[in-house]
Amino acid sequence: MKMLLPAMSEAHLQRLRSSAPALEYLVAANAREALALAPQVHASFTFFHPDLISAAPHLRWVQTRSAGVDSCPFDQFRARQITLTNARDIYGIQLADHTLALILAFSRQLPFLFRAQQREEWMSRDTFPPGELAGQTLLVVGLGGTGLETARRAAGFGLRVLATRRRTSEPKPAFVDALHPPEDLHRLLPEADWVAVCVPLTRHTRDLFSDREFLLMKPSAHIVCVTRGGIINTAALLRALEQGRIAGAGLDVTDPEPLPAGHPLWSRPEVILTPHASGHSPHADARMFDLLCENTRRFAQGETLLNIVDLDMEY
Amino acid sequence: MKMLLPAMSEAHLQRLRSSAPALEYLVAANAREALALAPQVHASFTFFHPDLISAAPHLRWVQTRSAGVDSCPFDQFRARQITLTNARDIYGIQLADHTLALILAFSRQLPFLFRAQQREEWMSRDTFPPGELAGQTLLVVGLGGTGLETARRAAGFGLRVLATRRRTSEPKPAFVDALHPPEDLHRLLPEADWVAVCVPLTRHTRDLFSDREFLLMKPSAHIVCVTRGGIINTAALLRALEQGRIAGAGLDVTDPEPLPAGHPLWSRPEVILTPHASGHSPHADARMFDLLCENTRRFAQGETLLNIVDLDMEY
Repeated sequence: MKMLLPAMSEAHLQRLRSSAPALEYLVAANAREALALAPQVHASFTFFHPDLISAAPHLRWVQTRSAGVDSCPFDQFRARQITLTNARDIYGIQLADHTLALILAFSRQLPFLFRAQQREEWMSRDTFPPGELAGQTLLVVGLGGTGLETARRAAGFGLRVLATRRRTSEPKPAFVDALHPPEDLHRLLPEADWVAVCVPLTRHTRDLFSDREFLLMKPSAHIVCVTRGGIINTAALLRALEQGRIAGAGLDVTDPEPLPAGHPLWSRPEVILTPHASGHSPHADARMFDLLCENTRRFAQGETLLNIVDLDMEY
Repeated sequence: MKMLLPAMSEAHLQRLRSSAPALEYLVAANAREALALAPQVHASFTFFHPDLISAAPHLRWVQTRSAGVDSCPFDQFRARQITLTNARDIYGIQLADHTLALILAFSRQLPFLFRAQQREEWMSRDTFPPGELAGQTLLVVGLGGTGLETARRAAGFGLRVLATRRRTSEPKPAFVDALHPPEDLHRLLPEADWVAVCVPLTRHTRDLFSDREFLLMKPSAHIVCVTRGGIINTAALLRALEQGRIAGAGLDVTDPEPLPAGHPLWSRPEVILTPHASGHSPHADARMFDLLCENTRRFAQGETLLNIVDLDMEY
């Protein structure tokens, strides 16, 4: 069997070969080369353009480099019963760090204080009101890999952690105070001081946060999203911020993305924007490669793969 | 017995009276009024100017509003055996939140990204390298109230937590990996990616961090201090930053304080400065007043007070 790969170091190729010696590895430097190799391949890492899928009649498995798979051609995967695996366990740690960084920046008034530092002005204590997380409520929307890591960190601050998860039958971690099905979202939103959006973008979660959801939030609440733009409706978010329905938003992902200069989100003082940076970590590549080797070994030996995406749920 | 108080609401006065009905409460609107009342008082909340201590022959107890007591006239307290109690349990929670906010801001490159947001520029992923706390080492210098809360939060991020504490005989909390006496500081500094200074300012801790300590730190390490200016020697810190001996500093306290406009610390890109804001919390006043009521009750009934300061160690 043959596996299609993007260019990688010889050391990485050697490790893959020793993980699954039975496979033959075909390296494509770009999408055009990948398309030319498509007719031969049974597995593909990172290449999944619809044209490539059509040109690859033997393709049985696609491994993505990302946790989000919203750009995948699900219709083809479903019709062909191609197994799709993602990188969901690779990014939870740093996405959770980033989420807590944004929550704490808001709580301790860092955007305001960064601007004061730029003016070289030692602000008096009474001009800004820092908060305290202990006793406040965090709602983790989607207790998957990122949500779990976010909840684990939040518990150390004495935050009350509520969470939603589709599979409520799985045991509730000790650091989560209450676990609810996704349908309870509207009932939970009024309780939250902080909303951490940790779901992936799917046809089910597009515009999950729109006017109605922001109306249900406390005017003092903040929303943070580091997974994908499009889960929060940008126009509705701007309306909510302009009308003071919520206190602020921390966004590592936007819609559109990249956010163009001049977009009104850039300059709002109650918005922190970071440029899809939450997935960055010095350890992400190593974790990704470990996963690739393990899944390649499993594929070669006919074992069940890690991180299989539900083709109906699209995550 | 009589207790000297600053102006406070009638509701607060009522609560104090019901906590310790045996005491008589004398309210002073300012230091001059306090000095005039000094000859009568046995206890004082917030007033401890040397002139007042000299004018108060019956004074037996002073309660401060702050955790740090570095501005107290210790010579007089020692000579007169006046009991000094501080507010050390009031501020640990928010000081720890602030410490983690600064650590995460550095780790996730927020100062850099705040400036990019101001330019409305969506930076490419390759222009800045965010980190990941999991597996890194945090050294908590001084595992008191603030240090404990800092360590508790840090553990949730998968940080390895080392700590120093004078009383190493007390049990090590589960969220601290290793506990050392203060004399081990120089041996521990080379291991730390993050140094959180949580000791109070005393004659023993002034200039605790100077040239030698920064030389022992990793060039990639950051130091954070939210307790008092003067523990970190400012000139040595500037030298260390200019020469790249450490990667950055997050300071809520400075020496001099307030930091004057034009001071070189303000404009260094690897420094986050906040204006002695870490003690702010919407709940600090309530915790302070609970402590005052409890200690006033204990004083009136001859019980041991909470948060007694060691007059020799000066904290």
